[in-house]
Amino acid sequence: MADRQIVGPVSGTDVPRYSGPSTFARLPRVDQVETVDIAVIGAPFDTGVSYRPGARFGPTHIRQSSRLLRPYNPALDRAPFSVLQVADAGDMTINPFSIDAAVGEVQEQAASWTSRGTRLVTLGGDHTIALPLLRSVHAEHGPVAVLHFDAHLDTWDTYFGAPITHGTPFRRASEEGLLDREGSVHVGLRGSLYDKLDLADDARLGFQQLTSRQFAVERLDSMIDAMLVRLGDRPVYVSVDIDVLDPAHAPGTGTPEAGGLTSRELLELLRALDGRHVVGADVVEVAPAYDHAELTGVAASHVTYELLTVMAGTATDATHAGAPVSETPTDLS
Amino acid sequence: MADRQIVGPVSGTDVPRYSGPSTFARLPRVDQVETVDIAVIGAPFDTGVSYRPGARFGPTHIRQSSRLLRPYNPALDRAPFSVLQVADAGDMTINPFSIDAAVGEVQEQAASWTSRGTRLVTLGGDHTIALPLLRSVHAEHGPVAVLHFDAHLDTWDTYFGAPITHGTPFRRASEEGLLDREGSVHVGLRGSLYDKLDLADDARLGFQQLTSRQFAVERLDSMIDAMLVRLGDRPVYVSVDIDVLDPAHAPGTGTPEAGGLTSRELLELLRALDGRHVVGADVVEVAPAYDHAELTGVAASHVTYELLTVMAGTATDATHAGAPVSETPTDLS
Amino acid sequence: MADRQIVGPVSGTDVPRYSGPSTFARLPRVDQVETVDIAVIGAPFDTGVSYRPGARFGPTHIRQSSRLLRPYNPALDRAPFSVLQVADAGDMTINPFSIDAAVGEVQEQAASWTSRGTRLVTLGGDHTIALPLLRSVHAEHGPVAVLHFDAHLDTWDTYFGAPITHGTPFRRASEEGLLDREGSVHVGLRGSLYDKLDLADDARLGFQQLTSRQFAVERLDSMIDAMLVRLGDRPVYVSVDIDVLDPAHAPGTGTPEAGGLTSRELLELLRALDGRHVVGADVVEVAPAYDHAELTGVAASHVTYELLTVMAGTATDATHAGAPVSETPTDLS
Amino acid sequence: MADRQIVGPVSGTDVPRYSGPSTFARLPRVDQVETVDIAVIGAPFDTGVSYRPGARFGPTHIRQSSRLLRPYNPALDRAPFSVLQVADAGDMTINPFSIDAAVGEVQEQAASWTSRGTRLVTLGGDHTIALPLLRSVHAEHGPVAVLHFDAHLDTWDTYFGAPITHGTPFRRASEEGLLDREGSVHVGLRGSLYDKLDLADDARLGFQQLTSRQFAVERLDSMIDAMLVRLGDRPVYVSVDIDVLDPAHAPGTGTPEAGGLTSRELLELLRALDGRHVVGADVVEVAPAYDHAELTGVAASHVTYELLTVMAGTATDATHAGAPVSETPTDLS
Amino acid sequence: MADRQIVGPVSGTDVPRYSGPSTFARLPRVDQVETVDIAVIGAPFDTGVSYRPGARFGPTHIRQSSRLLRPYNPALDRAPFSVLQVADAGDMTINPFSIDAAVGEVQEQAASWTSRGTRLVTLGGDHTIALPLLRSVHAEHGPVAVLHFDAHLDTWDTYFGAPITHGTPFRRASEEGLLDREGSVHVGLRGSLYDKLDLADDARLGFQQLTSRQFAVERLDSMIDAMLVRLGDRPVYVSVDIDVLDPAHAPGTGTPEAGGLTSRELLELLRALDGRHVVGADVVEVAPAYDHAELTGVAASHVTYELLTVMAGTATDATHAGAPVSETPTDLS
Amino acid sequence: MADRQIVGPVSGTDVPRYSGPSTFARLPRVDQVETVDIAVIGAPFDTGVSYRPGARFGPTHIRQSSRLLRPYNPALDRAPFSVLQVADAGDMTINPFSIDAAVGEVQEQAASWTSRGTRLVTLGGDHTIALPLLRSVHAEHGPVAVLHFDAHLDTWDTYFGAPITHGTPFRRASEEGLLDREGSVHVGLRGSLYDKLDLADDARLGFQQLTSRQFAVERLDSMIDAMLVRLGDRPVYVSVDIDVLDPAHAPGTGTPEAGGLTSRELLELLRALDGRHVVGADVVEVAPAYDHAELTGVAASHVTYELLTVMAGTATDATHAGAPVSETPTDLS
Repeated sequence: MADRQIVGPVSGTDVPRYSGPSTFARLPRVDQVETVDIAVIGAPFDTGVSYRPGARFGPTHIRQSSRLLRPYNPALDRAPFSVLQVADAGDMTINPFSIDAAVGEVQEQAASWTSRGTRLVTLGGDHTIALPLLRSVHAEHGPVAVLHFDAHLDTWDTYFGAPITHGTPFRRASEEGLLDREGSVHVGLRGSLYDKLDLADDARLGFQQLTSRQFAVERLDSMIDAMLVRLGDRPVYVSVDIDVLDPAHAPGTGTPEAGGLTSRELLELLRALDGRHVVGADVVEVAPAYDHAELTGVAASHVTYELLTVMAGTATDATHAGAPVSETPTDLS
Repeated sequence: MADRQIVGPVSGTDVPRYSGPSTFARLPRVDQVETVDIAVIGAPFDTGVSYRPGARFGPTHIRQSSRLLRPYNPALDRAPFSVLQVADAGDMTINPFSIDAAVGEVQEQAASWTSRGTRLVTLGGDHTIALPLLRSVHAEHGPVAVLHFDAHLDTWDTYFGAPITHGTPFRRASEEGLLDREGSVHVGLRGSLYDKLDLADDARLGFQQLTSRQFAVERLDSMIDAMLVRLGDRPVYVSVDIDVLDPAHAPGTGTPEAGGLTSRELLELLRALDGRHVVGADVVEVAPAYDHAELTGVAASHVTYELLTVMAGTATDATHAGAPVSETPTDLS
Repeated sequence: MADRQIVGPVSGTDVPRYSGPSTFARLPRVDQVETVDIAVIGAPFDTGVSYRPGARFGPTHIRQSSRLLRPYNPALDRAPFSVLQVADAGDMTINPFSIDAAVGEVQEQAASWTSRGTRLVTLGGDHTIALPLLRSVHAEHGPVAVLHFDAHLDTWDTYFGAPITHGTPFRRASEEGLLDREGSVHVGLRGSLYDKLDLADDARLGFQQLTSRQFAVERLDSMIDAMLVRLGDRPVYVSVDIDVLDPAHAPGTGTPEAGGLTSRELLELLRALDGRHVVGADVVEVAPAYDHAELTGVAASHVTYELLTVMAGTATDATHAGAPVSETPTDLS
Repeated sequence: MADRQIVGPVSGTDVPRYSGPSTFARLPRVDQVETVDIAVIGAPFDTGVSYRPGARFGPTHIRQSSRLLRPYNPALDRAPFSVLQVADAGDMTINPFSIDAAVGEVQEQAASWTSRGTRLVTLGGDHTIALPLLRSVHAEHGPVAVLHFDAHLDTWDTYFGAPITHGTPFRRASEEGLLDREGSVHVGLRGSLYDKLDLADDARLGFQQLTSRQFAVERLDSMIDAMLVRLGDRPVYVSVDIDVLDPAHAPGTGTPEAGGLTSRELLELLRALDGRHVVGADVVEVAPAYDHAELTGVAASHVTYELLTVMAGTATDATHAGAPVSETPTDLS
Repeated sequence: MADRQIVGPVSGTDVPRYSGPSTFARLPRVDQVETVDIAVIGAPFDTGVSYRPGARFGPTHIRQSSRLLRPYNPALDRAPFSVLQVADAGDMTINPFSIDAAVGEVQEQAASWTSRGTRLVTLGGDHTIALPLLRSVHAEHGPVAVLHFDAHLDTWDTYFGAPITHGTPFRRASEEGLLDREGSVHVGLRGSLYDKLDLADDARLGFQQLTSRQFAVERLDSMIDAMLVRLGDRPVYVSVDIDVLDPAHAPGTGTPEAGGLTSRELLELLRALDGRHVVGADVVEVAPAYDHAELTGVAASHVTYELLTVMAGTATDATHAGAPVSETPTDLS
Repeated sequence: MADRQIVGPVSGTDVPRYSGPSTFARLPRVDQVETVDIAVIGAPFDTGVSYRPGARFGPTHIRQSSRLLRPYNPALDRAPFSVLQVADAGDMTINPFSIDAAVGEVQEQAASWTSRGTRLVTLGGDHTIALPLLRSVHAEHGPVAVLHFDAHLDTWDTYFGAPITHGTPFRRASEEGLLDREGSVHVGLRGSLYDKLDLADDARLGFQQLTSRQFAVERLDSMIDAMLVRLGDRPVYVSVDIDVLDPAHAPGTGTPEAGGLTSRELLELLRALDGRHVVGADVVEVAPAYDHAELTGVAASHVTYELLTVMAGTATDATHAGAPVSETPTDLS
């Protein structure tokens, strides 16, 4: 492993960025590399949404919007694709007609990677997928701190009788013991709720609440500190619902709420994670049919890039030496 | 009943068309009239789609695009809203997370109208809803000729294990005996198929196939004749998938196929039904997120208007004298 | 009246939010309730605009974009629709061809509500309507402090010979004695002017000027304080031209100016009004043809929601116990 | 005059078409030429519309969409800009707040050209302007045959008390004796009407009715013949409401109706006028806010180009030798 | 070769069509198959355009819009991907800053396939690429009949001093002897020209001219016959500029002209080629930034599919047994 | 010169802003005035771009989006068009097919103005044009401080063998000695780079780097101070790549990067230049095909307006008394 060859993205000086591979950031496909430390994987699924659907096209859109990403990240002084092997694992195959089947499929396909030591950054898809993803993380790491960027709590109970939708993953996760109730936190909350009890319920389920309003009146540094204090030194799973951004920055999403974060704030918050042990992440709720000029796609691709840079800053999981790619469980190109 | 008062749309000379009620064609709501001969009803549901979702917003969009409809139809020399009582029944309440639950709900809510003699023109929603709608029609009329406008056969079997999706309603309907296998016909078929056997299967299930290609080389009159000959004098259920139109005329749909009908052709085909006994109809697969300048919404609203005009030309069902509106099963405004 | 039943919005757990009533926030229509404390009413009119028209479609668009509003507002810890009876009064009927006729119609229809003690939140429409709305407020309350959010002064004199357009309402209002010249204030001013004298004229007419530039360099708290100090404890009429927001947050408007407020800032400014006596409000200049992904509609609906929450925090007008709905002066659904 | 220099458009081989002058087809401005046989002039006005406004931006949009027009028209084997002096007269100055004032201004500014022998092709603007334009034509030619391309009759009486709007110009024109009741004809009619009497009224006012439906079943040649027979050898004024095209071909318009003409059909109908004496023309109801990819703008610019080619085929008006440009009544660039 | 395994597209019943590979029609990549009879290859290049650029994004867009293509083509009763091995060769690498360099690169990369017997269907890119593509075809086949679908002649001489641009490929090709001057033909011509001599020049260079106007008045069968008669039994190269379609059907292109073909007409014209020896093809001038709802992308993907179906109907080139994929000259995924 | 007549823009009270001249801010054309102190000139060219093209349409788009600009700038208490003669010089004529030819043409046309003492504000076009513009500035002023607003360094070396593209102008300029290496500064940098060495190279070439990140944590005043300190009292050339703004504020550009400046920040930075000697400026990389509701166009026009206001605050160049307009080197209207 010491002298393994890390394969990076296709360079923009060799192949113009509007052409060439359609993988995330023009990274190699998983079948083009020997081992995979971090896989970017698509989870095209939106049957769990309660308002605007369309996030099933999210993975393709984020990849298309990631073509301008270059290999060196000056904000963290790191070239993430040179440190660890990052590759694109294509899309999971997910049943669009049954939430139950879909959740099982996501869990199984995620575990096929995580069980071999590959960390996943999953491109959604709607937020439903966070539950099976957390299950696969929990199998490796036990309870983790969930750092949840979102306008919404996503700890509702049921909706039209369905216990698992895009509004409920973190209630289910808390109930199942997947998250560390002392270290989890929402960032960017805003908008209206069903009931005041939603907030109490949510706190009971293990989340601190940092609202978008607070960013209007406090310094960004203070907000970052509050977030980091809550996380402590726990292993962290980062879940980014793109609607944490103001609709001006992310129009292409399903349940937009005015008064959100700027993309500049969100990227700074993510960079502040540098040095933490990020065990996995997702970027969800990108609905391209409502996007314009790839605004949302570009924001999501930069979010993903910062996450990858942070994750590349910590050695890959100790008990694994990067997953040998013996078989590719998902279709890709 | 003889001297009942028929309530028509709000006039554009009283209230500007960009304002006022948001019902279809600014018709009264069902709770504003005494009896309802024909109800326009929304079926906001798109969990059965295999590609682009979004038809859940179809009913609202078609209604918004129907504001310019005026009361007299010169093409058929009839003022449909003066002959029979047409009203807007609002939207059915449909579970977005379970196709099975949804199909049951559509069937029940449709039957609550059809069992009382009200004919329905249903605004979709995806094509899945045609199955429960046909069940409710069959309960009143027995097997009917299905006149199906669509680029696609919609007689596939299963998809990802699901027997009821937007690609299968007419296979299920044929299997259940809901349609008259001697009188049903597809109009506007085109595009690629999974297998040549699809066509044979489809014919066996009871459909004649009139393709869009034929419209390119034959006179419109001949195509209309072929359609009418197939229907004979059977009671007819008309199901219009808006993707029967060329994407130029209906961009806002989920599975577009080049080479389709023009809106002028489709409207002529519908007008040719005048004098037939149309027992119900649906207009489905309008996906507003992909629409521009209401192209698709306007086309769908005109299709609906022609259907209503034809339906107003035949007396309401003999055994019913218009449904008294004792209770309104669906929410509306 | 003590034990009157307050009717709230249709719940998203009963009827999916993409379906059901098309009223603001899915509130009841005024004809569905017994009394109305606060009415949301549309004023579809844009003949007073000097550049991009289209605000005539504003009320419908804001309502459509308000479907995600839930009943509890955590920012102010209040469920506004449970405290007072809020209902949707539909659209005023307004002549599109004569500004004079239109102004008279708005004034008359507004007064039919305000004279009975119902406070109005009016969805425009262009800013011309602020004049007749202020007249109706003045009839009940005498001169009021006008809190005016806008990129523009709207105190110009005439334009192409017309004394009443969307650029002049507050000059006319000041001249007519409708506003309290000691307590009125513009917030969010920016962009170019015709002449330096415009500013002097404006001050003379009774307005303090808080510019958008100030928000770039001062803390939000200070700006809020300045606004509140100016208002004092006067009764306040709040007029929100959506172009106070930066075009990034509100592209769908008629006279966009770069360098505006964020939606987060605007919502905080509105929340700061809690405890003040807001006697009426309008949200104007939403031009949907220029909106994308409902950015502007969502912002306007959240603005309206915060206004309603603030207004629900003060008892309804003392001399009225909520307007009995004896007759509905406007068409609606 | 015999040896006057005709100034043509800026060539695409000298200046790339995406740059250079913003005049129609990159023609010279009227102040750059000595005489003007035909002027293209803008009439930015849309206060007469009953539904979607925005045609005030039509002239600018059509000019921008005309940049690809080249000097030789192969369909009629004529280089229209080499035969007669065609120039761009800029925009008329029109009051947006008063229809009466606007109509007077259009009439006056049009007459300042027509009275000197310049024929006008006017870019709207809404259809209201056809009335003052016909008045200016009538002053020179007496009653003319009106060849009216439109989905709508535009012979309604009043709307909200206004006798002159975009729905009434031809009723007013007929009443004023401006049109030849034996030779006028609508082409492309379709859609719903207020009343059957609308058709009778319209016929009485002097129009033959050629519907869009007829184009679906008859050969284009026959339709052209019918149009030409009606016109006879009368002087013709051509008024093209762009909504005569199907919304697929012209989405950017205010009152779209499905089932319209194709742009190919419309262009052929216009070419068939070659040899007729076209005394003036207008192209109206282009509303850019609803246009996509300049579809409507390109169609309108080609319509204008065919009209100019036909008009260039007949000598300029006998009593005038082209208008000397002594003064330019309108602002332009 | 007899028992080689042909690899077809990923099935929509295994992997939902909105996910999975991003190759054309979800075909295998060339590195996933043993031999390649027909390669679909991208040529992302638009430095040769004279008006709207953006066709550099064409290949990616057409592939994304091809996801709904299924394996059986009922119009020609053939499953093209089962008869011959079709695969996606990714994008050529092309210099965006030098037309000369670009032309050389296209020629070289095309020849690397054609010299081994693989036929190419190239996705543009602008029309400049037709010249190097014809050179590579000529190297194998000598002069071929060029069947050119386009609004424009593309036989201009130079533009701003450049001899090779998107307006000149067929003049250069004719001069170089690449095309058969007795068998070449333009279909769909329309719009304005620089000079009448353009037509004479064009004819001299070897093209028959079938205009879009002719389709308005003649039967489609006759037009097809004229096209086929001209081609005779010559080997044919088919070059489809998507602007041959009316802008209603193909808004996403660089130099739109009103009055074009419908997609239904174009697809029929292509199907009529069945049985001819099509030695190569291109589909060019798709500019996604101007596309809406993938209208143009879907049309282009269907055009490509019909071309592939026709090409699959004739055995692969006699002297080659399908190209062994020893090396992949272009980057792809 | 003392009593020369300065011609200002056409007033919005005389001619509605949606009509009238299409010059920047409705200023006079250069041929309508006697001398020109500052010329706004278009440089329609985008052959130097590496990703999304389309900036060739930038000048027209910015002009169209500048129609709302009024004559008095309250932020700087100055009426810029009354102090000096500002006029629109139309578009430069630039070869789209050869970067070398284009650079020469821009340089020559710019010098024809600057050599006569007219300062230029150039509307791009892509950033390639900054090199020839700096050459023309250098010819008059020697090395100048370059104040460069951009997400990107634009000091890359070559790309696909081309030394002059939109990514390289400031490296070339530094190498040629055009810029003052002690006083130049980038503002707004962000996003990923090719290599850490890019930053070192850039510093060596003479630039200080103020990143967008810094704006997230420092006060705007401090950032302004840092910028001003770097500039000192040197003559300044200001180059504004519109992608310095966050994509939310400027979606219509070619290489968007999340996390950028707000338009409010950028305008304040520009206003802070008041009193400095700004010898020229450009506003580049506006790509209208990706713009929505003129967001980017409006931002660019306001940027231009602030630049003009600042430039109007310093006397025109000492050695020149404003350029007499003896000849107009560029086409315009």
